Amino acid sequence: MINKLIKEIIKKDAPIVVGLDPKLGFVPTHILDKWYGELSYSLEAVGEAIYEYNKGIIDATYDLIPAVKPQIAMYEQFGIPGMIAFKKTVDYAKEKGLVVIGDIKRGDIGSTSEAYALGHIGTVSVGDKSFNPFNEDIVTVNPYLGTDGVQPFVDVCKANDKGIFVLVKTSNPSSGEFQDRIVDSKPLYEIVAEKVNEWGETTVDSEYGYSDVGAVVGATYPEMGVKLRALLPKSYILVPGYGAQGGSGKDLKGFFNKDGLGAIVNSSRGIIAAYKNEKYASFGDTGYADASRAAVEDMLKDIRENI
Amino acid sequence: MINKLIKEIIKKDAPIVVGLDPKLGFVPTHILDKWYGELSYSLEAVGEAIYEYNKGIIDATYDLIPAVKPQIAMYEQFGIPGMIAFKKTVDYAKEKGLVVIGDIKRGDIGSTSEAYALGHIGTVSVGDKSFNPFNEDIVTVNPYLGTDGVQPFVDVCKANDKGIFVLVKTSNPSSGEFQDRIVDSKPLYEIVAEKVNEWGETTVDSEYGYSDVGAVVGATYPEMGVKLRALLPKSYILVPGYGAQGGSGKDLKGFFNKDGLGAIVNSSRGIIAAYKNEKYASFGDTGYADASRAAVEDMLKDIRENI
Repeated sequence: MINKLIKEIIKKDAPIVVGLDPKLGFVPTHILDKWYGELSYSLEAVGEAIYEYNKGIIDATYDLIPAVKPQIAMYEQFGIPGMIAFKKTVDYAKEKGLVVIGDIKRGDIGSTSEAYALGHIGTVSVGDKSFNPFNEDIVTVNPYLGTDGVQPFVDVCKANDKGIFVLVKTSNPSSGEFQDRIVDSKPLYEIVAEKVNEWGETTVDSEYGYSDVGAVVGATYPEMGVKLRALLPKSYILVPGYGAQGGSGKDLKGFFNKDGLGAIVNSSRGIIAAYKNEKYASFGDTGYADASRAAVEDMLKDIRENI
Repeated sequence: MINKLIKEIIKKDAPIVVGLDPKLGFVPTHILDKWYGELSYSLEAVGEAIYEYNKGIIDATYDLIPAVKPQIAMYEQFGIPGMIAFKKTVDYAKEKGLVVIGDIKRGDIGSTSEAYALGHIGTVSVGDKSFNPFNEDIVTVNPYLGTDGVQPFVDVCKANDKGIFVLVKTSNPSSGEFQDRIVDSKPLYEIVAEKVNEWGETTVDSEYGYSDVGAVVGATYPEMGVKLRALLPKSYILVPGYGAQGGSGKDLKGFFNKDGLGAIVNSSRGIIAAYKNEKYASFGDTGYADASRAAVEDMLKDIRENI
């Protein structure tokens, strides 16, 4: 799967991913009002509104970007109708040729991780039929439970040509509380990075030399990005934290290899809620999708200039 | 919420929780065949079968137990119909007066953790209405992202009288890979335990002296259970790993305080798939729920004798 993502990145000259994290406050009023009118104030109305909002953004940007990253929490918070919106968003993005990175941060004991892996990037069998329940291409994985919690995801990747990004150093302010603690004279995130290399070892493809097991490293920690780029020679790095969380283009160079590959930078709020930003306010609420396109173009410019 | 759980534990003299982790292979053939007949081989049929199976187990055991712990991965793997079965299971268990511990192991950056917390143990507002989408009483939380990933759960607990159990030392074989690493001359799980104390500080209730922020510590690591019991004086400990994973009653004493409170032991497969165990085979497939009841009675005997 990583090869498919890399090819799309090269084709579009765009090492970026749009985070589809639809907070209710981001959805323009005209969309909300339409669905509240049809389905009253309900979770069902929210689910439909979120999906319509996402669809607009995908339609306005899919030719510029290789991938989208829906954050499942933003859907899960609205219960079953939210999960339906998640699933429809995944399916629609794939219809438009995008790679879909499900930001699910799952991780559990072995047999339970296997269930997550099968449901999100694998296949479940029912009688003589089989189904791909959520059908993302790549998912994010939490490593806190260790190898037996991650290996089932790797196995399912291999069986289905899918990928994972393992949390190594997250973008949030408290990420250092445990991840930076010193173990055997190096920070825990380096120990996790060593495991990422091990987990990915058997999934390296010869075409570009990257493995299907990538790493998440926040844009908000550029020095650690440089260190981890060197420690993870065969892993793609998914870099959240650009834009609204504080990372900018000049912080990103160190996450990439010299050939311009090796990293993919996520922006969520900065793209999907661009119309709420003064810079793009002239698009207005009804032009939210065009505002997202303009924000993608500006992000691409910033990143292409800096890497 | 912890008080409600403690009262139920005392009333039923049962510091145990039944893990509703319905692998497809556990669901008796007569239930599967019925739903395959009605809905053909489909995720919808699996969702209905899982719910009927769970309902049977709940009906046969609710008078003996204080709580159930559905593991969401086992539902999520079957997509939307699986999630519907999860939601219906939560609702039905609550109807029967059980405390519901959602084993979701979520954890993310702050604003995202808040979305998970609102969706699972909180309230979301839509126009002038509000909803409790999944409506568990307590959920499990992964601490790897640090305080800003956990605090939103604590805040939602306080606002809604709910609870969380934070992963401290998990029951799986690889849990030591990161959790046991030595930081400042103590294992990482102790550092996490110290944070659990901090996070729970403002949620301690005077009646029994426990906080709404508990800890997960696997039955498979009894010596660490003793250490963590001492380090976490105000936290209830959720103890998975009893039975099928290898923990037994004699390993459990150290997880409890002298008054017999302080811990709640989970068994999943050992209870819900008891009819597949030679010991309870005489109940047959159609007597699976009665087999579960017998297994609960045996588990209670084992635990009451040992703590």
